[in-house]
Amino acid sequence: MHSYWNDYPTIQSKLQVVCSILEEHMTIRNKEIQETLVEFSRAGGKYLRPAFFFLFAELGDSTKQDKDRLAKIAASIELLHMATLIHDDIIDDSPLRRGVITVQSHYGKDVAVYTGDLLFTLFFELLIDTMNGSPFMQTNAQAMKQLLLGELDQMNNRFKENETIEDYVQSVDGKTAELFWLACLEGAHFGQTSQEIEKLAGEIGRNIGIAFQVYDDILDYTAQEEVLQKPVLEDLAQGVYTVPLLLAKAEHPEAFKPLLDKRAEITPEEAKEVAALVTTYKGVEKAKAFAKDYTQRALDGIQQLPQGEARDQIEKLTRQLLERNY
Amino acid sequence: MHSYWNDYPTIQSKLQVVCSILEEHMTIRNKEIQETLVEFSRAGGKYLRPAFFFLFAELGDSTKQDKDRLAKIAASIELLHMATLIHDDIIDDSPLRRGVITVQSHYGKDVAVYTGDLLFTLFFELLIDTMNGSPFMQTNAQAMKQLLLGELDQMNNRFKENETIEDYVQSVDGKTAELFWLACLEGAHFGQTSQEIEKLAGEIGRNIGIAFQVYDDILDYTAQEEVLQKPVLEDLAQGVYTVPLLLAKAEHPEAFKPLLDKRAEITPEEAKEVAALVTTYKGVEKAKAFAKDYTQRALDGIQQLPQGEARDQIEKLTRQLLERNY
Repeated sequence: MHSYWNDYPTIQSKLQVVCSILEEHMTIRNKEIQETLVEFSRAGGKYLRPAFFFLFAELGDSTKQDKDRLAKIAASIELLHMATLIHDDIIDDSPLRRGVITVQSHYGKDVAVYTGDLLFTLFFELLIDTMNGSPFMQTNAQAMKQLLLGELDQMNNRFKENETIEDYVQSVDGKTAELFWLACLEGAHFGQTSQEIEKLAGEIGRNIGIAFQVYDDILDYTAQEEVLQKPVLEDLAQGVYTVPLLLAKAEHPEAFKPLLDKRAEITPEEAKEVAALVTTYKGVEKAKAFAKDYTQRALDGIQQLPQGEARDQIEKLTRQLLERNY
Repeated sequence: MHSYWNDYPTIQSKLQVVCSILEEHMTIRNKEIQETLVEFSRAGGKYLRPAFFFLFAELGDSTKQDKDRLAKIAASIELLHMATLIHDDIIDDSPLRRGVITVQSHYGKDVAVYTGDLLFTLFFELLIDTMNGSPFMQTNAQAMKQLLLGELDQMNNRFKENETIEDYVQSVDGKTAELFWLACLEGAHFGQTSQEIEKLAGEIGRNIGIAFQVYDDILDYTAQEEVLQKPVLEDLAQGVYTVPLLLAKAEHPEAFKPLLDKRAEITPEEAKEVAALVTTYKGVEKAKAFAKDYTQRALDGIQQLPQGEARDQIEKLTRQLLERNY
């Protein structure tokens, strides 16, 4: 399990169980694909969403909890995440993910399409195993739908000259925040807390998810130069404009226009110019303030949770994740 | 609705309802994708699997049936089929499907990946709407899994010099027959027949599915020459060997080896040579006999169904589908 969890001993052992459940469900007759999936599931993913799930479950009454069921639900969330990652890698033509060769680059896009589909099936299998007949089946199907609509929104916004920050948030709300919302909500629900805490948990998750994505987008602009170019260039060449660019561009659209008008033909040098303009017009600072607002909303929500060890751990993880120094 | 059903008036009107349900569920905020999906669902797909579903349901007691529920389940089966078609088109790089431009060729592979995923979600939404809590949830997840394992089998068999007819059947059993199995089984189950009929319905569906796929593969070798080349060439270039080739090759492997050893580099002329060898070694005749065997098993099963109008229609459709003259 990832060293990230060394300071969260109860979470670490629970995530170990999730890892075993995932490997068990990935046992299929096609051994090559099985090995690829197992390798992918072991390859340093942090299991962040299952971790939030367990932390919110710890707010509930542990004597009423079904530990086996909780672990399987946590695994279902990670499976949904993994399935979308595999399909993302097809779209981005990514050679590596988590330092490991991607399914699409190892076996080709065709195998990657069906492998991602297979993970969606395993996701539903786990849901059926743990909550068949529950209204949370519908909650999960809706979450998966919102996730995909968010991805389609992002594609729809590509090269959109007048893309607004609201367009961006709608897309991120689906493609990233929805899964954090689901993880926290389901943790609170299946951990046997209360309806009030469930609702709060979902809101906290959604705010964490948006802030998380914005910081991820910021990182593309602030990472060391040699690391920087590729993601920024890729995003620009694909017409995906993230918060630092959108906020810098909002007040100085004319400065960016000639470069962005190159669309997919933008060169590495021109992408560097765009990145420099983002710095000049304080896009990164503005994006940090934007993310901080969502982080604060999450922290305010966390303060309303019942006091105790679980709440402290949720706060600690949220700060660790969203108060990094860039 | 497709003119194919002019002779099946009860089916035609039921398929019309399925079509409306599909369009209703395809209403999403991304209007471009919505229009593409609706166009795809209207574009002359025969709705064969929902038709078999309804015909098997007609074997049951109509006074006990929930018509709205039946229509939704029929729609779920077609959605699962459509989702795999959209993902198939990505893999085959197909420009057209049913005479309409494919999602991947219109919007790119990235949109097609997520659009297919979205249809998988709509499939599960309909299941949750109609059978949440039923063991048939598990049956559906299993069917989807078998379908994907069948597709992965086919990829695994690519360019396999010693591929056997058993390898082929295992793949087709998943990628095609499983969905016919599901359609017939669910028709019998939700149409309120009996456990015995359910089991028989599933077996009939599976045999129809295999025969259907073999005839489809035969067609690639028997269609008029100008139509012929593309699918045969594509299959050969992708290393997908279907029944006519496998059966011709089984007895004369040395004749095929030099051509198939070209693998993805095979030229249209060489593909023509392969097709000629298939003819010389009676691959098509052998494949027809092979398909006929499955057709006969399906017809034998149909004879064991309760006598009446529904059984007659099932037999008529099966013969119409599987006793075409090539």
